[in-house]
Amino acid sequence: MKALIYHGPGQKSLDEHAKPQIVDAGDAIIRVSHTTICGTDLHILKGDVPTCVPGRVLGHEGVGIVEEVGAAVVTFKPGDHVLISCITACGRCDYCRRGMYSHCTTGGWILGNTIDGTQAEFVRIPHADTSLHPIPAGADEEALVMLSDILPTGFECGVLNGKVQPGGSVAIVGAGPIGLAALLTAGFYSPAQVIMIDLDPNRLATAERFGATLTLDTNHVDPVAAVKETTEGRGADTVIEAVGIPATFELCQELVAPGGVIANIGVHGEKADIHLEKLWSQNISITTRLVDTVSTPMLLKTVVSAKLDPSQLITHRFSLNDILDAYDTFGRAAATQALKVLITP
Amino acid sequence: MKALIYHGPGQKSLDEHAKPQIVDAGDAIIRVSHTTICGTDLHILKGDVPTCVPGRVLGHEGVGIVEEVGAAVVTFKPGDHVLISCITACGRCDYCRRGMYSHCTTGGWILGNTIDGTQAEFVRIPHADTSLHPIPAGADEEALVMLSDILPTGFECGVLNGKVQPGGSVAIVGAGPIGLAALLTAGFYSPAQVIMIDLDPNRLATAERFGATLTLDTNHVDPVAAVKETTEGRGADTVIEAVGIPATFELCQELVAPGGVIANIGVHGEKADIHLEKLWSQNISITTRLVDTVSTPMLLKTVVSAKLDPSQLITHRFSLNDILDAYDTFGRAAATQALKVLITP
Amino acid sequence: MKALIYHGPGQKSLDEHAKPQIVDAGDAIIRVSHTTICGTDLHILKGDVPTCVPGRVLGHEGVGIVEEVGAAVVTFKPGDHVLISCITACGRCDYCRRGMYSHCTTGGWILGNTIDGTQAEFVRIPHADTSLHPIPAGADEEALVMLSDILPTGFECGVLNGKVQPGGSVAIVGAGPIGLAALLTAGFYSPAQVIMIDLDPNRLATAERFGATLTLDTNHVDPVAAVKETTEGRGADTVIEAVGIPATFELCQELVAPGGVIANIGVHGEKADIHLEKLWSQNISITTRLVDTVSTPMLLKTVVSAKLDPSQLITHRFSLNDILDAYDTFGRAAATQALKVLITP
Amino acid sequence: MKALIYHGPGQKSLDEHAKPQIVDAGDAIIRVSHTTICGTDLHILKGDVPTCVPGRVLGHEGVGIVEEVGAAVVTFKPGDHVLISCITACGRCDYCRRGMYSHCTTGGWILGNTIDGTQAEFVRIPHADTSLHPIPAGADEEALVMLSDILPTGFECGVLNGKVQPGGSVAIVGAGPIGLAALLTAGFYSPAQVIMIDLDPNRLATAERFGATLTLDTNHVDPVAAVKETTEGRGADTVIEAVGIPATFELCQELVAPGGVIANIGVHGEKADIHLEKLWSQNISITTRLVDTVSTPMLLKTVVSAKLDPSQLITHRFSLNDILDAYDTFGRAAATQALKVLITP
Repeated sequence: MKALIYHGPGQKSLDEHAKPQIVDAGDAIIRVSHTTICGTDLHILKGDVPTCVPGRVLGHEGVGIVEEVGAAVVTFKPGDHVLISCITACGRCDYCRRGMYSHCTTGGWILGNTIDGTQAEFVRIPHADTSLHPIPAGADEEALVMLSDILPTGFECGVLNGKVQPGGSVAIVGAGPIGLAALLTAGFYSPAQVIMIDLDPNRLATAERFGATLTLDTNHVDPVAAVKETTEGRGADTVIEAVGIPATFELCQELVAPGGVIANIGVHGEKADIHLEKLWSQNISITTRLVDTVSTPMLLKTVVSAKLDPSQLITHRFSLNDILDAYDTFGRAAATQALKVLITP
Repeated sequence: MKALIYHGPGQKSLDEHAKPQIVDAGDAIIRVSHTTICGTDLHILKGDVPTCVPGRVLGHEGVGIVEEVGAAVVTFKPGDHVLISCITACGRCDYCRRGMYSHCTTGGWILGNTIDGTQAEFVRIPHADTSLHPIPAGADEEALVMLSDILPTGFECGVLNGKVQPGGSVAIVGAGPIGLAALLTAGFYSPAQVIMIDLDPNRLATAERFGATLTLDTNHVDPVAAVKETTEGRGADTVIEAVGIPATFELCQELVAPGGVIANIGVHGEKADIHLEKLWSQNISITTRLVDTVSTPMLLKTVVSAKLDPSQLITHRFSLNDILDAYDTFGRAAATQALKVLITP
Repeated sequence: MKALIYHGPGQKSLDEHAKPQIVDAGDAIIRVSHTTICGTDLHILKGDVPTCVPGRVLGHEGVGIVEEVGAAVVTFKPGDHVLISCITACGRCDYCRRGMYSHCTTGGWILGNTIDGTQAEFVRIPHADTSLHPIPAGADEEALVMLSDILPTGFECGVLNGKVQPGGSVAIVGAGPIGLAALLTAGFYSPAQVIMIDLDPNRLATAERFGATLTLDTNHVDPVAAVKETTEGRGADTVIEAVGIPATFELCQELVAPGGVIANIGVHGEKADIHLEKLWSQNISITTRLVDTVSTPMLLKTVVSAKLDPSQLITHRFSLNDILDAYDTFGRAAATQALKVLITP
Repeated sequence: MKALIYHGPGQKSLDEHAKPQIVDAGDAIIRVSHTTICGTDLHILKGDVPTCVPGRVLGHEGVGIVEEVGAAVVTFKPGDHVLISCITACGRCDYCRRGMYSHCTTGGWILGNTIDGTQAEFVRIPHADTSLHPIPAGADEEALVMLSDILPTGFECGVLNGKVQPGGSVAIVGAGPIGLAALLTAGFYSPAQVIMIDLDPNRLATAERFGATLTLDTNHVDPVAAVKETTEGRGADTVIEAVGIPATFELCQELVAPGGVIANIGVHGEKADIHLEKLWSQNISITTRLVDTVSTPMLLKTVVSAKLDPSQLITHRFSLNDILDAYDTFGRAAATQALKVLITP
């Protein structure tokens, strides 16, 4: 089969690769219908993720059709349409029982990282019963690719951890795909204000279309002053970090109201400063989270009931044969105005 | 009357000072029965608290007897025995209605800071109806001085924010009075392990007497290795920072288990490092809090029902005339083995 | 001044009545701009509320302008536009500190019950600082009358107690004003389904207009079968009782899913059956609540930010001179299609 | 092997019965080390549980040693010592993912009910990976039999659902084994008062030994007046129903404080009255629950760390050969003073 292979920092190619086989009784083999590229894939290609070694098939998002199941799989059978979770969960370990699938002792984020992933014609999914979700007939399968990772990440790490509330104020730092996913799902809780902060006017325009009540272009506006002004001097109840660099994390500390939450989503490569000399008395929380995908069944319901339309995030479409072009388009997002690129084998 | 006056960094004296008068209709004048010294008073004397200006009577803890009340006070009358909360709360502003008394727009921590405090024969308490607590007849009033600040602080900022749970593991960094207050009140939730970390063997011995299941002397033991070893490699579910310097805050980051909480109590004077490059995926929370004293009525009940004996924290007793000696004893705690010093006018 | 006076079961009249005076230092006198009639007023007129004695001015809802304040009032001054909460709260007692204003030891529901109410030109509001809310300039004051009682009641007793969740299913039994208020505010949490159950086709049509995803006319449909069918056989996650009779409360028990909540709003006059022989193992909760009005500031924000338009509930308008007609229209709601009637002195 | 067989209402015998075999790949066969009898077994023998048909091996509690495992079992191997949960959970269905194992679509309470149970030499446990718990070396295995059902039931259905809090008041109606299990585990949250209500002086004496702060013998005392007196007229914050008849459930309604919870544990055979005419405005919750056993790992930790000693509940010991005597002793508990009877094959 064809697959996108990581060959070490800066190197990737679309190669012929052996079709995956059932290894454990809980495995399923999925024929991939659609997949996509995540910012994390770019991190891997920079060499920032040492657990991912050369020779690996990349990708941890996708929908597909069950091709084959191991002897212990009871929920799925060949022919079933399924959503692949970016997080693999055994459902049995202490972490899984607490709903912290991200830290499953034999799973977690392994797809396209420590085992072969979804940017291929087929993929092996371990712990299939608890790592795949059945797709209801008639659902928009392209849109559901957004439920593998980006929407549960924006929702769990940003909105749930950030305790977004009816009538509350939310500031989101970073209007990339993940910040926009947080914006879309923040709406579930009817905040009075959602303020989107970025330096790319195009992304801010998209944020406005997605329902931001205020957008702040940091090229022209002091975001701290602007957020304070619109929140009676207090700051935002929820501040969501959706970039992953020290400067934006420090900005969040200036934006948060007393009693508020800074919910970090960004994947950070280095330490940052925390201004405890100011924050110690401010009754705030800072949260971090690798998505657990516990909310995926709920998100599926909201897509089916049309409360949420994640297809809005798809800006470009490619065949698997053109995945190198897809990487190029996604990698130059400022120029191409790409959010999520859909790839179809 | 006699009062301990702050005269600028490094300078204090016991002076004659005008007896306080009712200023607002919600005020009460309290004759102080017992007061004490807080680590924050030492911070003020170092010049670290710019809101506290020379000429101020220090002190924000104490019990006493109501001497006089303003026209709007309905809960208290002269002769009532009362516990003085370190936090003054109007009960009306947005923050007070949310239980965040620490950020009351006309109160918060003002006693011995922006208005005269309790290290005196008399003190004026604004918003008396919502800033004093009635003392039940027969209660141990010396012990209750510990409920003005240190016990609600250890409990709210450490135990409640830290989400201590039955069967859970707790690591407390710093075995001073505030760390010990966290230890005592952690017991309300029956954690399986409470590990106390300090470099003073005397304080660790006290911690053991107060119920710590393990004490770690950082002069001799690597606390990270020791905590990991006793928690099956995971780290502690709750880590309480009770020192207030960058090094201990960073230590907390190495001690916390995935899914755990770092509850900061320490008063920090400078920024610290936060290792987001490790923590971003660890599903942890970091909390800060200036005590709200919302738990004071509950703590009063537990003292009356003998679930909690805060008098264990009192190591020395002085008359108000000897308050300079009390400051000296409290300031040289390592040598004097002082925890809390009781001062009686 | 003119006021609607209760003269005992079945008897009321619009009389001349002495203008209220400041009694306690915390009182305010409000010139009523708009008021309305509540189902509870009809209960009083049936003689069902023994705490309300003849001679009482009825009414516990309204907006107005501050005429005069007592010496202890600090938040309001003459000329301020204010929303009157149906619940009077001292802000100081144990219940108030826990946010359970409904059980304030010197307040709670007293307006138009144990003290004179709002269906008059003027009304005295005790504990004014904590029982009135400032109205932002430019707000729709007619719409805000709905925030005195009906919207916080639908929201707190129905939506919050019922734990409405994104993606969840909600069944509301009773499409009167209070059921519709629950429907409007359930939307804050983006449930996938809101099913409205009643026997009045007109009210069900209104429910549909207000966003119900399914309406069930019990004259023609078995609501239990219909709710099961639309929830994969499970029942509704949240069931809201908005009628107040044994039959509807029992219906709720058949509608609730395992793990769900029955949130009672209805004012009941007699006991009902609880089928513990079925429910004991169903992991459900049943909640009751007299509205606390803790959510009123948040609801105000959502009205100002246009997330909520409560003016939709106003179907008729009367002057105070015609309040007997207003009672007649409201009392024959099935015939008049009345929801809330606005009364303007 | 020998097994206690249900032969229809009123009929049981110790018979030879075929040793269970692996049926599904997720099954384990356990050699039973210790088992016990539950009040529910007596219900079955009265004919009250129609899902349990003649020919069934009774029993849903026990510890044992793994004899054999199916091909899909990964957590356990022959020779492992295990605690058997009374609830069988697949870990995969919607209910299991929400921690509501009691309603597992292919599990729940099936042992000794719809499939053969533990009062035998061997038992087959479906979904073994998620329905058994590993026993740490050196643990008191007799005591752990109390963790199959009675302690998680008292804790989850009574203490957790009842929101027992530090400083709070708890009233437990019924001092049988389940009420005593609630009493023991209520201590995890340090309530100021735990009031035990029963009509058996012997059980009340046991309750006192187990830490009740007040015991009320309803033969001699009006429990409503007594609870009100000891709670400043308010009633108890948490009321736990541990009997299962209409009279005790109605008593609970008179005992609960405004804002409190009635947590039902009792297995009810008929409907009861709910006095909504009083309760509608009291801001209370009523909860029901079939135990989920989600707390079993935590309870195991507290037993190992000696916070909890469940062996106190064992009053009598029998060999499996004498299980009919064990049933007789347990069935005449008032006369024999039996709490839990330990049975050893």
